Amino acid sequence: MSARDTIAAAISAIRVPDAVARHRAFEFQAHLTKPAGALGRLEELHIWAAGIRREATPVPGAAEIIVAAADAGVADERVSAYPQAVTAAMVRNFLDGGAAINVLARQAHARLTIVDCGVASDIDDARLVVCKRGFGAANITGGPAMTRDDAEALIAAGINIAAAAAGRGATAVGLGDMGIANTTSAAAMTALYTGTMPRDVAGRGTGVDDTGLRRKVAAIERALQVNAPTPNDPVGVVAALGGCETALLAGVILGGAAHGVPVVLDGYPTTAAALVATSMAPACREYLLASHLSAEPGHRHALAHLQLRPLLDLDLRLGEGTGAALALALLDAALRIPRGMATFASAAVPDKQQDAVLER
Amino acid sequence: MSARDTIAAAISAIRVPDAVARHRAFEFQAHLTKPAGALGRLEELHIWAAGIRREATPVPGAAEIIVAAADAGVADERVSAYPQAVTAAMVRNFLDGGAAINVLARQAHARLTIVDCGVASDIDDARLVVCKRGFGAANITGGPAMTRDDAEALIAAGINIAAAAAGRGATAVGLGDMGIANTTSAAAMTALYTGTMPRDVAGRGTGVDDTGLRRKVAAIERALQVNAPTPNDPVGVVAALGGCETALLAGVILGGAAHGVPVVLDGYPTTAAALVATSMAPACREYLLASHLSAEPGHRHALAHLQLRPLLDLDLRLGEGTGAALALALLDAALRIPRGMATFASAAVPDKQQDAVLER
Repeated sequence: MSARDTIAAAISAIRVPDAVARHRAFEFQAHLTKPAGALGRLEELHIWAAGIRREATPVPGAAEIIVAAADAGVADERVSAYPQAVTAAMVRNFLDGGAAINVLARQAHARLTIVDCGVASDIDDARLVVCKRGFGAANITGGPAMTRDDAEALIAAGINIAAAAAGRGATAVGLGDMGIANTTSAAAMTALYTGTMPRDVAGRGTGVDDTGLRRKVAAIERALQVNAPTPNDPVGVVAALGGCETALLAGVILGGAAHGVPVVLDGYPTTAAALVATSMAPACREYLLASHLSAEPGHRHALAHLQLRPLLDLDLRLGEGTGAALALALLDAALRIPRGMATFASAAVPDKQQDAVLER
Repeated sequence: MSARDTIAAAISAIRVPDAVARHRAFEFQAHLTKPAGALGRLEELHIWAAGIRREATPVPGAAEIIVAAADAGVADERVSAYPQAVTAAMVRNFLDGGAAINVLARQAHARLTIVDCGVASDIDDARLVVCKRGFGAANITGGPAMTRDDAEALIAAGINIAAAAAGRGATAVGLGDMGIANTTSAAAMTALYTGTMPRDVAGRGTGVDDTGLRRKVAAIERALQVNAPTPNDPVGVVAALGGCETALLAGVILGGAAHGVPVVLDGYPTTAAALVATSMAPACREYLLASHLSAEPGHRHALAHLQLRPLLDLDLRLGEGTGAALALALLDAALRIPRGMATFASAAVPDKQQDAVLER
């Protein structure tokens, strides 16, 4: 199947979540030995996942976190505190199990899939999923990040990776990213989709200094001016502003939604992918959970545009899927509650007082 | 040892957390393969626990959640949506493993200790820790909740329970509470300590209606007026306003701090216990983590008074230690990171660019 056909098939396969399963989940919560609603967002997570997975009490189980790694030519504008070689070194670190996401994925009992969708050097490791079309995005201050064909190929690759995760029985898919300078692309896309000024959506990423931050804002302004993308052409937007990880992760979102799997965002670059994916297929928004509010200032704008309320606010600014892993553990807890708790009837716990008693 | 001696010994055993271990934890974070600070509050949790446990990278491991259950005579004022019999029924549910806290404690790999410190009926179960001095707190709208002797006995019992948990090797202690009408006492203590009006600290608890909420505010006002406690006599405050679970949990806090164990608060009643404990021994504040911001409006005031910033905001309003269990899982993740991650040196990941390169 061509990339374009893969994308069209995924989009047309996205269903509205099952309202009956959601309602049954909501009613189920009222029978558990606690006041209805007393577990707040944990109950919301259960009801949300029930709609997506089309059953009242979805079975908890291992999720899969997909970390998309790619380099970005805009690193040449010295917008990051780290050299580009970090991207490849961190991919090796992921494969060797030494990064933060490895620790957090283990704790969340989540499988970890590392994808090279554009790292600037080749990494020879059988555990790495490679779907790169080159050595990363071009410098977006001088023209488009990639061709339209490349963008479509990466989106289709993401769809296939999500399909494989669903085939392996993933109960949810978490997104992660790695790539020096990739918050510059995320900020450019957030500025475009939300109509916010570049200076209000550009942050320090992994810790760039004041001069670097000014260069970053200027790079975003130039990228938007030079490429002049239009929001209603999402493939064009990602081809123009990049990065490769945005295209791939937009595909993972579409594929996750097409296969009826909850999709958990991480920080800024994964949320930029959600801007693209929901622009391609608005229905996929119902499949998204915002795991956390990043310390990057633009993240708030992107989430507000998506009308997603983040679950956690822990000042994370690492990426790699670390926030997604923490949220997946909470989602797992939320799904274990309806299956592990007693009901008022089974435990012989008295429910709310009758009105007659209350108003005596 | 008399109760008073137990309390005095615990207070004098509380040390200032180890600044050297804290500093070494802070420096250790900078060597891990991530930008320093990029894991935000997870890094703070590690550094906080390092100071308390007096080692740079404390070993993660099973925590213990102590749930204090007691009834409150103020339930006669019809301030709760549930009948008093729910307290005992929920204690049985805890022991049988069917409550929300059982599910969440299992997920956090935490041991669960259920304490009857004043349930209005006797529960015959060898798994229950019983240290009650009667069938719960008296109705605080007509006089004190308990005698000063009873308050001291319950505080001492809490100290001993925390000591036993520390002896079992608990890496942290989480607090939980169960008791119909117990947010009324929590609100009364919060009003007293923070100087806030009763109507601003009284909430719907497990779901009382408007009329019930008005009765609750009136009950708090009467309790403060009738008992006229003074904040600088914390044992007198808890004897006056109750509840039995507040006294016991204040003891658990003092005992946890005395034994060098991090203490994780849950919702409103556990935070009221922290108001009492920090008033008895200000040094124990450094041992406290606020797990979450409850949906109870007064909880925010109590946390602000303690200068504690809650880790989670998930609209929980259940108690039982459910928020503490979720935070303990995050604390476990925070302690696994420094022990599970590679360093820049070990993984050959390039660190930040040299200034010479950045400013070329």
